[in-house]
Amino acid sequence: MSVNLHRMKNGLRIVTENMPGLKSASIGIWVNVGGRHERLEQNGVAHFLEHMAFKGTKTRTALEIAETIEDVGGFINAYTSREMTAYYARVLEDHVDLALELIADILLNSTFDANEMEIERGVILQEIGQANDTPDDIIFDWLQEASFPGQPLGRPILGPSERVRAFQREDLAGFVEEFYGPEQMILSAAGAVDHEAIVAAAERLFGDLPARPPRKAEPGEFKGSERRVEKDLEQAHFALALEAPGYRDDRIYTAQIYSMALGGGMSSRLFQEAREKRGLCYTIFAQAGAFSDIGTLTIYSGTSADDIADLAGLCIDELRRSADDMSEAEIARARAQLKAGLLMGLESPSSRCERLARMVGIWDRVPPLEETVEKIDAVTAQGVAAYAAEMCDAGKISLALYGPVSSAPERTELAERLKK
Amino acid sequence: MSVNLHRMKNGLRIVTENMPGLKSASIGIWVNVGGRHERLEQNGVAHFLEHMAFKGTKTRTALEIAETIEDVGGFINAYTSREMTAYYARVLEDHVDLALELIADILLNSTFDANEMEIERGVILQEIGQANDTPDDIIFDWLQEASFPGQPLGRPILGPSERVRAFQREDLAGFVEEFYGPEQMILSAAGAVDHEAIVAAAERLFGDLPARPPRKAEPGEFKGSERRVEKDLEQAHFALALEAPGYRDDRIYTAQIYSMALGGGMSSRLFQEAREKRGLCYTIFAQAGAFSDIGTLTIYSGTSADDIADLAGLCIDELRRSADDMSEAEIARARAQLKAGLLMGLESPSSRCERLARMVGIWDRVPPLEETVEKIDAVTAQGVAAYAAEMCDAGKISLALYGPVSSAPERTELAERLKK
Repeated sequence: MSVNLHRMKNGLRIVTENMPGLKSASIGIWVNVGGRHERLEQNGVAHFLEHMAFKGTKTRTALEIAETIEDVGGFINAYTSREMTAYYARVLEDHVDLALELIADILLNSTFDANEMEIERGVILQEIGQANDTPDDIIFDWLQEASFPGQPLGRPILGPSERVRAFQREDLAGFVEEFYGPEQMILSAAGAVDHEAIVAAAERLFGDLPARPPRKAEPGEFKGSERRVEKDLEQAHFALALEAPGYRDDRIYTAQIYSMALGGGMSSRLFQEAREKRGLCYTIFAQAGAFSDIGTLTIYSGTSADDIADLAGLCIDELRRSADDMSEAEIARARAQLKAGLLMGLESPSSRCERLARMVGIWDRVPPLEETVEKIDAVTAQGVAAYAAEMCDAGKISLALYGPVSSAPERTELAERLKK
Repeated sequence: MSVNLHRMKNGLRIVTENMPGLKSASIGIWVNVGGRHERLEQNGVAHFLEHMAFKGTKTRTALEIAETIEDVGGFINAYTSREMTAYYARVLEDHVDLALELIADILLNSTFDANEMEIERGVILQEIGQANDTPDDIIFDWLQEASFPGQPLGRPILGPSERVRAFQREDLAGFVEEFYGPEQMILSAAGAVDHEAIVAAAERLFGDLPARPPRKAEPGEFKGSERRVEKDLEQAHFALALEAPGYRDDRIYTAQIYSMALGGGMSSRLFQEAREKRGLCYTIFAQAGAFSDIGTLTIYSGTSADDIADLAGLCIDELRRSADDMSEAEIARARAQLKAGLLMGLESPSSRCERLARMVGIWDRVPPLEETVEKIDAVTAQGVAAYAAEMCDAGKISLALYGPVSSAPERTELAERLKK
């Protein structure tokens, strides 16, 4: 497999990887903008804009956008994260050009029709309602807010309903003007794709975009705080975060190994203690999530009202124990899991395409797989212990609790227990 | 790519497909038993049993089961559906033998330790709690119950909490004795796998299982009924089902084309009417789901309390309109979507492995892709119209409603509206 990277004159970057044997492709534009680029009064605009891309261009109605891609059996979709907005398609090999032309159209020629905007407002309000009705979804928004309070990085991507109700056409157009420059766009494609053909098509479609300086988001700063919402639910939902490294920091691999051994699989300490030995929960996991400059190590679980205090204490104790006595065997296993997961993920064109875009966005290059594997192999038990002890000793945790959670311990109490 | 099928003397079937270029594999045992094979007093046993497979064998503790597979970076998992219980693993190519040996161990040598059973009871009760806290999950259980009331096919897979609290070791062992015969097992593997090596390993691991006649489930009969639960949620959740063909009926492709054009993608009628034109919902879809002998065509959406009556009426009207005036272009598009979706799905070893097992379970063979494509191509607009009109004219619908749903129309009213 071969990765090709090309930078257009206006700064738009193109990264492709041909995967021999595949008959389909994943292709999209990843725009380096998301919720964390919004000012307070803009909160929700990045996501609203992403929705409006599908609501009509100068030459296509919303129905025609959908028909163009579905007529050839493909599909098109988009998502907004805290620092990326992605517009991508999955198609069979003969339709890669068509998919790219359509993505360019919805990205560059969206009309933001006022009537369509009113309709889409209703759709997004329902999307917010759906998230609010799903405890193990909304709790992660609250945890993010508790981790980065008062910061753009802490705000919900969908935005508050009041703002979604108020946005006008100018808010969307202004956001495009500010953030959708070619230097913030990465065209990524993987699968049955031809680099030269994609570069040629991209020059034609995006070549006229004027270069302009890219806009950066303000750095995130992890703070410990809490959001606790009492509700009549069957489970007491619990989410906890510690600070973790961002993508640009090589210690990210140390954090990933720590979180994998702590709560990444069935053999992990949290799974073994909370589920296998105690039967307290069905779901429990830890994961190290990253943004470009900072990240969070997150634990999530759900249990009964009677057991929430126990479960919260157990999570803290396992965080601490994992800092103090993680074995070489556990570290070796976590390394194997991380590497195999990486390799298996790369067999899918969608995840490969997304990874290419992310790496170009962070490092402006695609590190060879061997380089990533070397970095994972370089993580030692001592390194994990040092990192974990530093995190635990700082005792800076954020919490989100939802459901019958009145007997959950105070955050300060859990933080003290973590430090000792 | 080449499919190989082998039947062992005791009736266990082995199906494999080598996928050139892949460095990983998916492998598992699909047992042709699930919720619909349970008698009323057994409801939840198939799923409880699946959980207990991971809780210890004659030679491995629960921790050792997890470590065995995660030491090599792989993972193992299982699920119980209405007619299948699957135990499967994902591993890199060097570890296929190890994965198969482990799957055989948890399937054949599980100890059902009494203490472990008490712990796992707690885990399953939390799993039930988690499902109950997720409206767009639990509503499908209610729809299934409303579609097949009083029948094994209509019961929840997790079982009611009271039964989960009461099951004893004998209930599990008896269920294995009844249903886990080799004729009900299919070993399926896809990716970097070697057929002969897998057959040899399987003969060694499963060859001693005594043959015994397979047990069949009673046929399902679709009935129209309703489950309506008022609750203080943000969205009024709505799910509707009509009868559809089972896997053994070639009209399944007609039903799939109808449901695709009705609500399978962004260009579908439901998406266009309810979301794009009216802004009533974020999620809306239709799909044709199948069991071996019968299926359901399901519509799901969620909207506000004020709009639930509108949305329900709209779904009925689109079902009817789609029976009356579906165009050739819509049928052609649905065909393309179905075929491309099939091809793209087959690029993943997991979905290919699962499809092989399902096909062998249903037809005792793996129809070549071209055969399936031919059947999809053979579906005509006339055929869809005839099928859809028959379904609509029968007016037999089941409903599940959850949330602020007091203003939703009566089922009989919706049924009448569908008929005319």
